Amino acid sequence: MNQVHFADRFLEKIDEKRTPCIVGLDPAIEKIPLHLLKGDSFEDVANAFREFNFAIIDKIHDLVPAIKPQIAFYEKYGAEGLKAFKDTVDYARSKGLIVIGDGKRNDIGTTAQAYAEGHLGNVKTKSSSVPSINADALTVTPYLGSDGLKPFADVCKEYKKGMFILVKTSNPSSGEFQDRLIEMTEDEKIQLKELGVESIDKIPLYVSVALQVNKYARQDKGKRGYSAIGAVVGATYPKQAENLRKIMPNSIFLVPGYGSQGGTADDVVPCFNSDGYGAIVNSSRGIICAYEKNGNPENFAEAARESAKFMIKDINSALERNGKLPETWKKT
Amino acid sequence: MNQVHFADRFLEKIDEKRTPCIVGLDPAIEKIPLHLLKGDSFEDVANAFREFNFAIIDKIHDLVPAIKPQIAFYEKYGAEGLKAFKDTVDYARSKGLIVIGDGKRNDIGTTAQAYAEGHLGNVKTKSSSVPSINADALTVTPYLGSDGLKPFADVCKEYKKGMFILVKTSNPSSGEFQDRLIEMTEDEKIQLKELGVESIDKIPLYVSVALQVNKYARQDKGKRGYSAIGAVVGATYPKQAENLRKIMPNSIFLVPGYGSQGGTADDVVPCFNSDGYGAIVNSSRGIICAYEKNGNPENFAEAARESAKFMIKDINSALERNGKLPETWKKT
Repeated sequence: MNQVHFADRFLEKIDEKRTPCIVGLDPAIEKIPLHLLKGDSFEDVANAFREFNFAIIDKIHDLVPAIKPQIAFYEKYGAEGLKAFKDTVDYARSKGLIVIGDGKRNDIGTTAQAYAEGHLGNVKTKSSSVPSINADALTVTPYLGSDGLKPFADVCKEYKKGMFILVKTSNPSSGEFQDRLIEMTEDEKIQLKELGVESIDKIPLYVSVALQVNKYARQDKGKRGYSAIGAVVGATYPKQAENLRKIMPNSIFLVPGYGSQGGTADDVVPCFNSDGYGAIVNSSRGIICAYEKNGNPENFAEAARESAKFMIKDINSALERNGKLPETWKKT
Repeated sequence: MNQVHFADRFLEKIDEKRTPCIVGLDPAIEKIPLHLLKGDSFEDVANAFREFNFAIIDKIHDLVPAIKPQIAFYEKYGAEGLKAFKDTVDYARSKGLIVIGDGKRNDIGTTAQAYAEGHLGNVKTKSSSVPSINADALTVTPYLGSDGLKPFADVCKEYKKGMFILVKTSNPSSGEFQDRLIEMTEDEKIQLKELGVESIDKIPLYVSVALQVNKYARQDKGKRGYSAIGAVVGATYPKQAENLRKIMPNSIFLVPGYGSQGGTADDVVPCFNSDGYGAIVNSSRGIICAYEKNGNPENFAEAARESAKFMIKDINSALERNGKLPETWKKT
């Protein structure tokens, strides 16, 4: 079991690699090199995913602090797929990478606890208690309110794991519900005042979610001030990110939407605190499908490495331009 | 592949069993009879879940139209658990039951499509396209907006499957975000007017979600007027349900919260249309853990059957008291 707080472990990896860039391992059969598929069974698909992921992990584990496999792409192939997911988690962790399971899970009470224990904690068998999927962190959706967040937060605290709660997502329709303006509760008014955020009449729903994230985040901080309770904040909404940075000062932002969804390196800068920490930026297809551009499927892992290097340079340069590159990364 | 629309298939089963009651198959190691656990591996746990579920299915498949297994309890045990889930889906369907996978999945674009295809549609292998988990329906969370709903709705249409979108959930904290009052958009004002719902200044967020559910629901109706796009509406909020019934006239409501969460038979009545259709009422622990009350773990399946019979009588009596028992169910 981990002895070090999730955020401290993560920040240590980020400092070691000198980058907040992470790689989304989202294999799809239409997107992986054909030569990896040996046959037509789900086991063949799972084997291809394993070979694809392991090769990429081998080529990027010295460059980035974490991977974020999207569970949907594995679960799609049932038990065989989930086995490939679990093997990917284990392999990445054995290479020193932090693993964020992107599952957007959500439920209440004992059901939420089941997800949390399965993905992050221990699960009971007849006479023991052992890790199951054992990722380092999981993404969680907040629609059910605190009944759906507390069980995850409790498991994170117990097992020194992390969670990233969806706050403002990167997709075009994220505003349909997330941006709807609501009256603040008295409690929310007090919280915003304490945070020194300009008093406003109404807030978008996602700010209310952010305030709840902050409540949990403050209760589970590591030595460096960052919390095990993070937030998903899309790269495609930099203005909102700037405000959210103030509302969740202790949370690490998991930032999707860079690259393929249109977010630029400059767009992600507001997700970072002035110390240069507090955000991780994900790219999935941009890295793992980079081989499609050079037209050489045999070299997919090398193409992923080159693409990851490009992304790291792009993001770190933007941080530097904005005076946010951590001091210790500048030493050679 | 199904040739009949999901809602028509479901209503036929409901008429055949003469009840809207369904059973939640949510096995937890602390809750299943100990004698089912033969050893300490995840395979042993999965075997126990299979034996538990199959025995209950054998005893209730002639009584109820559907089961709703909660995926979290299976996924908790990784690939072995998911295999038990898949086997439960297959076994229940072989016994003529409709299967609703309760996964509260949510994501956007190709990721949402991956969940939808994996749970409800076909998935691609090297040279073919075959069913994977192959449940009849899946629960889905709406926080991401239409980007996160349309891919599921599309797969439902293509494969004649169903989905239940979380609208107003049964848990105590569901109001924290779902009940927040928002200004209506012009489009929402028009929709509510068309539905003949009293014009009000502001609506709770869940009404906005309900209006979006209705948009999809109207586009995928079966012969009897009900849609493949349903809604989750908790038994614990009967007043809200009454209003939601008007806003989503074509949607089948999946109603959790009866029994263990405090919802009574009378509380669920507003979820039904005046024709006596339009809702299904779930009970999980109340049925599958009924054996705990009579203290005989060997007879767990028989206890589940008796408890299911009690629930059916309770719900159908409430429908009858309120003039909502379908005419054809009254014949002997």
